[in-house]
Amino acid sequence: MAKNKVKRPKARKARGFPDRSGAELIAERLMLERIGKVYESYGFAQLATPAFEYTDALGKFLPDVDRPNAGVFSLQDDDDQWLSLRYDLTAPLARYVAENMDALPRPYRRYAVGTVWRNEKPGPGRFREFTQIDADACFAPAPHADAEIIMMFVDALSAAGVDDKDVEIRLSSRKVMTGLLEIIGLDPQDQGQAGTVLRAMDKYDRLGADGVALLLGEGRKDESGDYTEGAKLETAQIDTVLRFMEGGDMAEALSANAVGAEGTEELTQIISTLTELGYSDRVKLDPSVIRGLDYYTGPVFEAELTFDVENEKGQTVQFGSVGSGGRYDGLIARFKGQEVPSVGCSVGVSRLLTALKSKAALDEALGPVVVLALDTSEMPRYHRMAQALRKEGIAAEVYLGGAGMKAQMRYADKRGAPITVICGEDEIAKNEVTLKDLRAGKKASEAIESRDQWTEERPGQETVAEGRMIDWIKERLQ
Amino acid sequence: MAKNKVKRPKARKARGFPDRSGAELIAERLMLERIGKVYESYGFAQLATPAFEYTDALGKFLPDVDRPNAGVFSLQDDDDQWLSLRYDLTAPLARYVAENMDALPRPYRRYAVGTVWRNEKPGPGRFREFTQIDADACFAPAPHADAEIIMMFVDALSAAGVDDKDVEIRLSSRKVMTGLLEIIGLDPQDQGQAGTVLRAMDKYDRLGADGVALLLGEGRKDESGDYTEGAKLETAQIDTVLRFMEGGDMAEALSANAVGAEGTEELTQIISTLTELGYSDRVKLDPSVIRGLDYYTGPVFEAELTFDVENEKGQTVQFGSVGSGGRYDGLIARFKGQEVPSVGCSVGVSRLLTALKSKAALDEALGPVVVLALDTSEMPRYHRMAQALRKEGIAAEVYLGGAGMKAQMRYADKRGAPITVICGEDEIAKNEVTLKDLRAGKKASEAIESRDQWTEERPGQETVAEGRMIDWIKERLQ
Repeated sequence: MAKNKVKRPKARKARGFPDRSGAELIAERLMLERIGKVYESYGFAQLATPAFEYTDALGKFLPDVDRPNAGVFSLQDDDDQWLSLRYDLTAPLARYVAENMDALPRPYRRYAVGTVWRNEKPGPGRFREFTQIDADACFAPAPHADAEIIMMFVDALSAAGVDDKDVEIRLSSRKVMTGLLEIIGLDPQDQGQAGTVLRAMDKYDRLGADGVALLLGEGRKDESGDYTEGAKLETAQIDTVLRFMEGGDMAEALSANAVGAEGTEELTQIISTLTELGYSDRVKLDPSVIRGLDYYTGPVFEAELTFDVENEKGQTVQFGSVGSGGRYDGLIARFKGQEVPSVGCSVGVSRLLTALKSKAALDEALGPVVVLALDTSEMPRYHRMAQALRKEGIAAEVYLGGAGMKAQMRYADKRGAPITVICGEDEIAKNEVTLKDLRAGKKASEAIESRDQWTEERPGQETVAEGRMIDWIKERLQ
Repeated sequence: MAKNKVKRPKARKARGFPDRSGAELIAERLMLERIGKVYESYGFAQLATPAFEYTDALGKFLPDVDRPNAGVFSLQDDDDQWLSLRYDLTAPLARYVAENMDALPRPYRRYAVGTVWRNEKPGPGRFREFTQIDADACFAPAPHADAEIIMMFVDALSAAGVDDKDVEIRLSSRKVMTGLLEIIGLDPQDQGQAGTVLRAMDKYDRLGADGVALLLGEGRKDESGDYTEGAKLETAQIDTVLRFMEGGDMAEALSANAVGAEGTEELTQIISTLTELGYSDRVKLDPSVIRGLDYYTGPVFEAELTFDVENEKGQTVQFGSVGSGGRYDGLIARFKGQEVPSVGCSVGVSRLLTALKSKAALDEALGPVVVLALDTSEMPRYHRMAQALRKEGIAAEVYLGGAGMKAQMRYADKRGAPITVICGEDEIAKNEVTLKDLRAGKKASEAIESRDQWTEERPGQETVAEGRMIDWIKERLQ
């Protein structure tokens, strides 16, 4: 009779979803803790909404407006209603504020930290789930709430480990854009031509005036030969936009336009507060800050890290954006019709971790002290030694599994153990332990020439009375 | 022309999913932090697997074995593969270990904390997402790894705030059950009769010997009249089971059965280690610990809190289970056929929070100091005051929104502010601030008889030089 072959599932993580561990996970956890503490110091309290929202309540405000129907993981509940996993933390906040409108304090300040999901094609470094940390103030009109959010955002980056001198907050306003579009005779609501103009302006940093001029006019062919259709503006219109981008007096340029003037007045007040509070060296007006999200209605900003890194092509570039935010007075109104002036910011958690890594290697955390288990009949003794170390605040573990001394030492090495505790028959007989400082051992062995010399000197290793174990280890770990 | 009515989505959270904030969320975060620190001190490092797994890799190991096909949120990916949200943290660990088999240290100790989802009918207090925190050791044979996990589990509960005297770890072994079933002539693999026997034994605590005897025999009608079919054992079989439950010498009772004897030998060694390490007062053998999960193969345990609470019917009962764990040597083998001896524990996060709340009210966290904004042209001044307080480690916020003094004071009250800073025209002219201790004010006003007296004395309120503000507030917050 032929043997039935058991059909086994393949052990593989789902496409586009990461497993995470080690130094990077620890660094992220620390970073989120520190940012959360800054938010709390500003009176923002944590809110945890669930992963799922009703699809209609979630709405469609994904950054990539070109694919409005894609991007979300959805499924139908057993009562036939559609549920979607949140793709950001702002849409659930809008639902929460609308649902609890009358019970919330005004202003309502909250922060949130959690996983969000995007149903997109995964690629190298492009995951379908990631962590966000957001802070928002609702029932909080411009410009004072905006100034506060920006200060807090800068403090959060600083608490996360970013040098103040490396940060620049680039600030503009959706109203300023609207004003400019009106001045050149376009309809700001027109997703077509107006949208093309905004996308062109967004590239000012990268392409400069000449490149943007092409995108505002007929169109532009890039180095790879790809052609981008232009906004078909006339020369006079293009000149107006470029003069504006080149950074003359924004307020003067927009003074004749109501919305534009309102926008520049708000920005002036924000800058004035930031100057008084000592943040002005890290903030600059920059009309090329557009921000993709449809729902912004007032001031918008981006945090850029200004230090140089190498890009994939080996070119030296500024690190770039690690977070952003802005005002959205109309978002919550989609539920009840009532405007709720709101402003928020969001730190790009994984971008920021990458930035911190590029400035300084993340330390692989020191592993625990490993107590070898050389005689399994003595396991309680080994557990007791580990327990004694833990009571002194030293992470410690007992080897499990019954391998030989060599395999256990290899294990300790793999775990990044600073020290191993060795206690076999000889030591037990004399109430002693042999302690081995693996870091000192590694250093010393580089200077040692022969195996004989090593055997004789056994660098970093010492046999001491069991009662001396804790002090010996504490001294080495200082 | 009739006005088009805008169709607005309804703002409502999804059925069975909670919004969470306030003291309970803070308490949970603290609890998870403390438990995580204990796990790290034992050498368990954090692993974060994603929310989604391939449905076939996840397997079906839900506690409720009666509904094997329900319970999971699943959807089809755009490449037609089925994805499911994890329903626990053990199944993703099994996938991870099988996928990274050769790269992992042995033993591999990891802990995990995260949301899990259950696609079940929601009810009062029954949510479809909740938090778990698990620790597991893989490539870690019995009984030493089991003893370690149990000690760590007890330490974790203690770090979370449970009194040592309130905890009891009830310990048994799947092997002991198998031995007993074999002794009375049943096939332990038989989900039918053997399963009915195990479920009956599981109720020993609640129903006592007589009730269990009925469930082992013909069947039992409960007080509400519901009839449960029995296991149809014969009298001699029932007597054997009951004698076993009544707690004679487990080892002697099972000495003639190979699996049973192996099980009791392992339990004896675990108890011996726990006794040497000072945990034996909190651990007791209890054959009624069955644990629903199919995949357990060796020692199993439950943490019970022994203090009394009132149940929904107003009866005094012990609080009961706040976590559990056990050995599962076969679970990872479903991927590659190779057994990986493993043991783990899981704290019931929300049960434990409920337990801690029932012992002592969670303190609503003290709100931030609120700086009133009485003159919006002075906003930078108010921001500066809040900033000065934050620099001293005092959470502080500026009122936003331009309401009157009364509304701002109501806001401060709603926020749980201990102190408000009041700085209007008069104070500004003299470089002063008025500080109001809301807690002292509340206390004093209870003793005050008339409005006039209140106006005159203004309890808890004082006007001081602006430079004195921080010291004044610090004194009050000590």
